[in-house]
Amino acid sequence: MNRLVIYISDSTGITAETLGHSLLTQFSGLEFEAHTFRYIDSLEKAQQAAALINKAAQNTGLRPIVFSTLIDPVSQAAVADSQCLFIDFMQAFIAPLAEELGQPARPAVGHSHGVVQEQAYQKRMSAVNFALQSDDGVGLQNYDQAGVILLGVSRSGKTPTCVYLALHYGIYAANYPLVEEDLERIRLPEILQPRRRKLFGLTISAERLHSIRKERRPDSEYSSLRQCQYELRQVEALYRQFNIPYLNVTTMSVEEIATSIMARTGLENLRPGPDILPIT
Amino acid sequence: MNRLVIYISDSTGITAETLGHSLLTQFSGLEFEAHTFRYIDSLEKAQQAAALINKAAQNTGLRPIVFSTLIDPVSQAAVADSQCLFIDFMQAFIAPLAEELGQPARPAVGHSHGVVQEQAYQKRMSAVNFALQSDDGVGLQNYDQAGVILLGVSRSGKTPTCVYLALHYGIYAANYPLVEEDLERIRLPEILQPRRRKLFGLTISAERLHSIRKERRPDSEYSSLRQCQYELRQVEALYRQFNIPYLNVTTMSVEEIATSIMARTGLENLRPGPDILPIT
Repeated sequence: MNRLVIYISDSTGITAETLGHSLLTQFSGLEFEAHTFRYIDSLEKAQQAAALINKAAQNTGLRPIVFSTLIDPVSQAAVADSQCLFIDFMQAFIAPLAEELGQPARPAVGHSHGVVQEQAYQKRMSAVNFALQSDDGVGLQNYDQAGVILLGVSRSGKTPTCVYLALHYGIYAANYPLVEEDLERIRLPEILQPRRRKLFGLTISAERLHSIRKERRPDSEYSSLRQCQYELRQVEALYRQFNIPYLNVTTMSVEEIATSIMARTGLENLRPGPDILPIT
Repeated sequence: MNRLVIYISDSTGITAETLGHSLLTQFSGLEFEAHTFRYIDSLEKAQQAAALINKAAQNTGLRPIVFSTLIDPVSQAAVADSQCLFIDFMQAFIAPLAEELGQPARPAVGHSHGVVQEQAYQKRMSAVNFALQSDDGVGLQNYDQAGVILLGVSRSGKTPTCVYLALHYGIYAANYPLVEEDLERIRLPEILQPRRRKLFGLTISAERLHSIRKERRPDSEYSSLRQCQYELRQVEALYRQFNIPYLNVTTMSVEEIATSIMARTGLENLRPGPDILPIT
């Protein structure tokens, strides 16, 4: 039986999910069944959660693993006392931070983005709209606004990467769909030529691309292994010929693709600060 | 001077950023300058990071706060020994988990998504493509595939929410742009009628909408406060008339909107499991 994992939070649950998931990937060969209890922002809800955890422990004979970012100490205690391995992601770190910062934490339940971050938040939302408008070469006039223009054959991961960069980092990311003729002639489209410094290429193994395209259009020339091999050979030749940095994304998640591009291009807005530079 | 915050990771850095940011929001009134050192996957890079941290500590006279998800103990020690408050998000939790799970952690540096999660990952990528194809009423034939169809006036947050639900949770989310006439007549478009159980509405304060729309089209009827007030009054009347659940997103981030919708609709795929239900 898969071990039950519960993420519990007084807010979105995203922090508990993110760190909990990272920790679980350190234990190979095990399978987990995960659920998230979000917006547990009252003692009553915390008690309901504890009751469900106890019931699951009895039904399965194994105590669930609970990853918590609950802030309220009373709610936290209610859950920690249930039959589980309770792992607290917040309280453990609050004390050393409070000491370092010289002020106590303000125990805010369900903290939302403050006024300070308003500008950064609006930039992320604008960047999402930009990514959608600039997807697949639509909105060419937007290329001057782009921080990066991704190249790659169809289904190599350009669109999800653009969306991720926008949604999480407020980076204006566009993508350009190279056409048959560009690939055949190993030609950089005219519109991209003055923007060469913004280009970043994706590539992928032919087998992987074949398998992704088959899902979309089985039994087509488009999804055939031979066509995938041809397009990838040409696109990589193009990257090399025009000195476009590129990344093989075969075994990478969209999170890894996006952050690797950021790490390699220095795309993150590193404001002039105390001599902190990207490490290469 | 803003306190310097460093997120450091042998992988994407996303986990360190997520929990570190959550912790910092617990301390109000302070400002931080944050940088992420990603893919610190060798001792040499860890030593470079430590040197930069020391230099920053000397330049600013304040030791940086370092949030780490480094796995390799030697790299971790190199950074922890620099002039910083070192907060470790991984090692502290690995030991109790290993004991509970009855097996040691496999210290995998730069862990990528495994074969097990391949299916879930492909679902997320398909959902992103679905969200883009279904944005703003394009691709009406896709509505049967949608897990949720968001309603709301222009710029109330539908598109970023759809994209978030897709990218992070693999939820097929579409949105429908109500037109002038739908609002005027408080009319549910015909195409939505058989899909009423999938509908979820967004609303927002008129002042906030006015401010968002002004950025896009200043001095237009579209962005006038009066027009915003009118549209919101009508759309809320429509939600009430057709019993469509809805959410006021005025002070919410896209993460909060997405997870609130999931919590309220039970959209997450709760597979038949040991009696774990959403808590309401």
